[in-house]
Amino acid sequence: MLLHLSTWPEVEAYLQTSTGIIMPIGSTEQHGPTGLIGTDAICAEAIARGVGETTKALVGPTINVGMALHHTGFPGTISLRPTTMISLIQDYITTLAKAGFTKFFFINGHGGNIATLKAAFSQTYAHLADLNLANGDRVQCQIGNWFMCSEVYKLAKELYGNQEGSHATPSEVAVTQYLYPEAIKQAPLSAEVASGYPIYSAADFRRHYPDGRMGSNPGLATPEHGEKFYQLAVKELSDVYTKFLQEE
Amino acid sequence: MLLHLSTWPEVEAYLQTSTGIIMPIGSTEQHGPTGLIGTDAICAEAIARGVGETTKALVGPTINVGMALHHTGFPGTISLRPTTMISLIQDYITTLAKAGFTKFFFINGHGGNIATLKAAFSQTYAHLADLNLANGDRVQCQIGNWFMCSEVYKLAKELYGNQEGSHATPSEVAVTQYLYPEAIKQAPLSAEVASGYPIYSAADFRRHYPDGRMGSNPGLATPEHGEKFYQLAVKELSDVYTKFLQEE
Amino acid sequence: MLLHLSTWPEVEAYLQTSTGIIMPIGSTEQHGPTGLIGTDAICAEAIARGVGETTKALVGPTINVGMALHHTGFPGTISLRPTTMISLIQDYITTLAKAGFTKFFFINGHGGNIATLKAAFSQTYAHLADLNLANGDRVQCQIGNWFMCSEVYKLAKELYGNQEGSHATPSEVAVTQYLYPEAIKQAPLSAEVASGYPIYSAADFRRHYPDGRMGSNPGLATPEHGEKFYQLAVKELSDVYTKFLQEE
Amino acid sequence: MLLHLSTWPEVEAYLQTSTGIIMPIGSTEQHGPTGLIGTDAICAEAIARGVGETTKALVGPTINVGMALHHTGFPGTISLRPTTMISLIQDYITTLAKAGFTKFFFINGHGGNIATLKAAFSQTYAHLADLNLANGDRVQCQIGNWFMCSEVYKLAKELYGNQEGSHATPSEVAVTQYLYPEAIKQAPLSAEVASGYPIYSAADFRRHYPDGRMGSNPGLATPEHGEKFYQLAVKELSDVYTKFLQEE
Amino acid sequence: MLLHLSTWPEVEAYLQTSTGIIMPIGSTEQHGPTGLIGTDAICAEAIARGVGETTKALVGPTINVGMALHHTGFPGTISLRPTTMISLIQDYITTLAKAGFTKFFFINGHGGNIATLKAAFSQTYAHLADLNLANGDRVQCQIGNWFMCSEVYKLAKELYGNQEGSHATPSEVAVTQYLYPEAIKQAPLSAEVASGYPIYSAADFRRHYPDGRMGSNPGLATPEHGEKFYQLAVKELSDVYTKFLQEE
Amino acid sequence: MLLHLSTWPEVEAYLQTSTGIIMPIGSTEQHGPTGLIGTDAICAEAIARGVGETTKALVGPTINVGMALHHTGFPGTISLRPTTMISLIQDYITTLAKAGFTKFFFINGHGGNIATLKAAFSQTYAHLADLNLANGDRVQCQIGNWFMCSEVYKLAKELYGNQEGSHATPSEVAVTQYLYPEAIKQAPLSAEVASGYPIYSAADFRRHYPDGRMGSNPGLATPEHGEKFYQLAVKELSDVYTKFLQEE
Repeated sequence: MLLHLSTWPEVEAYLQTSTGIIMPIGSTEQHGPTGLIGTDAICAEAIARGVGETTKALVGPTINVGMALHHTGFPGTISLRPTTMISLIQDYITTLAKAGFTKFFFINGHGGNIATLKAAFSQTYAHLADLNLANGDRVQCQIGNWFMCSEVYKLAKELYGNQEGSHATPSEVAVTQYLYPEAIKQAPLSAEVASGYPIYSAADFRRHYPDGRMGSNPGLATPEHGEKFYQLAVKELSDVYTKFLQEE
Repeated sequence: MLLHLSTWPEVEAYLQTSTGIIMPIGSTEQHGPTGLIGTDAICAEAIARGVGETTKALVGPTINVGMALHHTGFPGTISLRPTTMISLIQDYITTLAKAGFTKFFFINGHGGNIATLKAAFSQTYAHLADLNLANGDRVQCQIGNWFMCSEVYKLAKELYGNQEGSHATPSEVAVTQYLYPEAIKQAPLSAEVASGYPIYSAADFRRHYPDGRMGSNPGLATPEHGEKFYQLAVKELSDVYTKFLQEE
Repeated sequence: MLLHLSTWPEVEAYLQTSTGIIMPIGSTEQHGPTGLIGTDAICAEAIARGVGETTKALVGPTINVGMALHHTGFPGTISLRPTTMISLIQDYITTLAKAGFTKFFFINGHGGNIATLKAAFSQTYAHLADLNLANGDRVQCQIGNWFMCSEVYKLAKELYGNQEGSHATPSEVAVTQYLYPEAIKQAPLSAEVASGYPIYSAADFRRHYPDGRMGSNPGLATPEHGEKFYQLAVKELSDVYTKFLQEE
Repeated sequence: MLLHLSTWPEVEAYLQTSTGIIMPIGSTEQHGPTGLIGTDAICAEAIARGVGETTKALVGPTINVGMALHHTGFPGTISLRPTTMISLIQDYITTLAKAGFTKFFFINGHGGNIATLKAAFSQTYAHLADLNLANGDRVQCQIGNWFMCSEVYKLAKELYGNQEGSHATPSEVAVTQYLYPEAIKQAPLSAEVASGYPIYSAADFRRHYPDGRMGSNPGLATPEHGEKFYQLAVKELSDVYTKFLQEE
Repeated sequence: MLLHLSTWPEVEAYLQTSTGIIMPIGSTEQHGPTGLIGTDAICAEAIARGVGETTKALVGPTINVGMALHHTGFPGTISLRPTTMISLIQDYITTLAKAGFTKFFFINGHGGNIATLKAAFSQTYAHLADLNLANGDRVQCQIGNWFMCSEVYKLAKELYGNQEGSHATPSEVAVTQYLYPEAIKQAPLSAEVASGYPIYSAADFRRHYPDGRMGSNPGLATPEHGEKFYQLAVKELSDVYTKFLQEE
Repeated sequence: MLLHLSTWPEVEAYLQTSTGIIMPIGSTEQHGPTGLIGTDAICAEAIARGVGETTKALVGPTINVGMALHHTGFPGTISLRPTTMISLIQDYITTLAKAGFTKFFFINGHGGNIATLKAAFSQTYAHLADLNLANGDRVQCQIGNWFMCSEVYKLAKELYGNQEGSHATPSEVAVTQYLYPEAIKQAPLSAEVASGYPIYSAADFRRHYPDGRMGSNPGLATPEHGEKFYQLAVKELSDVYTKFLQEE
């Protein structure tokens, strides 16, 4: 059930059966010479919708832009500052919690979002406690990083070994190829690719990772791989969400 | 050209030909008993992409959640506070302006966004002026409200008269019917519908507008109407964007 | 009844009869070669006091500085950033609402304040809802723009035609001449005056509007005109305020 | 020279001769059973204008509302939170500093403003240093508290002894009587008056100071006293301002 | 009783006997050629612990970094901006007040903290009032500046006359010598030392106070002096704290 | 070299040889019935100073209070909200970076700080890039979590098996016993201890972890263990810091 294709009476009815909601969150950031700028949002949205179908859960609107400040040295990247993202997450959760939602499952497509998401959850729990809301201190948030699902990880290792890398990876590129075959890009990819440098400022990042990839060879991706990754992620995160709902 | 389906080298190339970008912005809010919660985002996104095709412009990711605090008395609504939205808009524009974009055209589907968007533009111009950015004081933002296009307005008047109302209108519902025929909803709509009260707090809004509609009869909407509204809006906003680009 | 000339027991007594208050808000910004920098505050304050007398309403202290970032390229302009103004408005309303005020009528002298004021109202309603205040969700705010009163508009059209322009207008200059005849300024005004450019950054504004006027000929203003504008505005806004008080 | 009665070219000319500006700052807060709610703003404004005349200095718009949170238990009080006031002061100084002002003399009528004003100056100096402004690190701010002028203090001691108290004092009431003889209030003043309790929350303040006075007997005030206080304050602060301008 | 060396059940037990807590606050800032950068935190911490022993009070963790923006022209200085410090103080007090603490005694080692601390208290009282906390409006905060204790002041005058100065003073240096004899520094101190300039920006401060001292001769300090200052401060502040606890 | 025991000329000299600084960061939070509230700050400070001695690095003042909102259901806990902590970290780094520091190594004693620290680093890099600082985009921050050192982890496993748990662990308690043998606490510890619940709000945390421990048996700790953990952590983090300095 997609929130944007529902009416408010339908949501009111849904709340009688469940107070859980799935929130896809991605990023709008460079993904190397061939990866789509929307990769993280595209993957998170599709997988979240898959989980929604599997579990009959409501799926909220995709947060297309996340915390990608370190990628802003490449054109096309858009980023929130962490404090903006904390306010945004707090606003989302607060307005939904007032309507009765208590279980928020963020299906996430971008590693760079994790720290700020966690900080936002802490800030929000404290905020809700101050509101004298009926279920204020029962609100619970979890992150499901599709790219860290154990089966996804295993398959990526199997297919790509250490050419999976950590940004603009063949696995995420494969998922976008499966979802948008019409947008498969071709561009020369140097065999040598930077890897292993920590992430600091945007300028520093571009100095060390000149084409945007981090140790990855997205040239290995295929739409068929993408379909498998998609299915593995949907299955595993559906289980996680189901357990999350059952947790007291 | 859709940003999320592009690569950063493609954006780099695009910037050689244009520094303009189209940003769809909607809302996630109740739209009465039959209107989709995503109505404003759905309309803004589709029309923005239409304008992008017509004008060969880059179209950014849709801002799905806007300023809808007054609708938060109805379940399913998500809203940013105005200060959060100002930070968000400033972050979007700042990261894009650093990459060279200077013309931001926000195609907007929600009247409640307008005031905060304008405030955000003012805040952002001042912020950019402090950054010693190459083109900091050349950045220009405009809002294109599709529902205020003169031809859209005329057709709505013609088709619906004063049953167009001002929220959960047949015209916007029609556009979503055209775009998502599989999500056309049926629900009883009372003939009498509240109208004319100003908008204050969320609780006050729900007291005065108990089913969420403001003077509208969305039962008049058809997918065929929707297609016409869509085409009129795309045509008119394409012209506006083209003139905006030419402005010094 | 002027708040600054009242005592707290007088305000306590007033609250037994009315929970409405009139808040004048202006700006401190350039008004062309002959317009006073305080024009917007001067007009708002005088008209607010006139409305206060007519309706026996309490009139608060004038907010002399508003959102005028686009005029800061001209010396003498002072501006709040929108987020500062939102905090200010929220603080004003919150402290007054705690004392029992529920109807806030902002008599405004500056078009540039409108968007930020509206954003501030939304932010404040949501803030008050979180405070568990007795009348928190009954607080209502309205803006009365004196320069947009229908009779004011009609007279300006009649007297000045399209030389009214949209900033440093003869009508607002006339009101200041009526109120401060000792401060009527003389300076050469070029016959040609820029008009029609949208407002972006402060630097961009000064490039396009080199003497600060926007399409206006303030040389047409007279103190006699000013008196008429003043009276028309007081009459119309008194009616608006009276209706606002009666609204449930 | 009053900023609100000047034009921008006049300010431009003034900046050739001086980069100093006088900013009156007061408060809108209860002043006991007979003191005007606007007392602090009224005194600061009048004395600032007197200093402006004496020293040929530009006088900015009065900041009518300051930091009076501890008085908000009494109706009619309006207060900024300290963080709002810091933003406000930073915005005022920043927009004026960009136009070339470097010496800011805040003539203050309210003890409760002092701490926040000082915090605001520190915050603003650091902010300006980050802007790469021509004279950013040359900006200097001082506070002139009229009620702490040595001659004012001496006269108050002489006229009222320890009945001067520390809030709703006869000296400040006297100044308002001199300036607004038409607004001299009569109300019973108990001989016993609370004094000596520190200031904490608004509720605590009202518990300890039930009629709003702090150890004062404003019944001793006369308009003639007020004139003397006014003149002493203008003289002394004019000297302070003149020395401030000469300071490197 | 030191908070950091206690367990939560011990704190729970303590709250049965007292709701007071002592919070040491210092600064990390240059103290001239021979003064320790940690001087203000070192003194505040030691004296706070002495007061804690004398009065059996709980002593919280030392706030090592305060408001020292004007010293940031010298390497080694760390400073919060005033708004950050206000948030920090509010967070400290709020989390402790929720556990039942109501009396907060800040033993302070740095004059530059005072204004911001006071602003923070005002902001926090208002914040707590909005939380519907049991004792929200009973929370009380006081500052005990050890260097302003009357006996401390008298002894400093006696020992150093006007060579005490106002920053990097022999009295505070003496206290650090008493506490850290192993860290007594030697460096040439010019006989002439700047004094009397007001404090503005960091750059302006360093221009006027090139070696960081303000009118002081820390060469006069001895560990024996330090012990005396320490004892006088502990005694006087213990009395102040005891009275503070007794205050209703 | 300890910053608080140094003078500014000593720091100036240090900067000629290194631009690195070690920042200890802990927390002030409940650590079960026998763990010290200051455990995380105590461990981080001691280990940071050990690393400072080993590597001749400058060690800054300890950040005693971190992000511990989930522990605030237990008395004695003090916590910053994440946004406050982000501002604090940004202020620390910014003031130090202006003096020339570029390598910031945060030795951390609290898992709950990690997410917010990472968010703060991202926010700060972007902030510094806007300041036109000489080395703004060269600033680099790393976190060294002593409890995650591989040798520490191995020893804890060996000594305690799964009784190490994840909060109020015997390993961290052991380190505090080694450092403060006079503050070793005795209290009954139930054999059964909650574990495995995710962390949400403070109230939820206390419901699930009634005595504050998370799966740990701190009764196994000894001061001798503590010494070993201390030494292993100092050694490993000294290596990490040394490599960090060498990184380009």
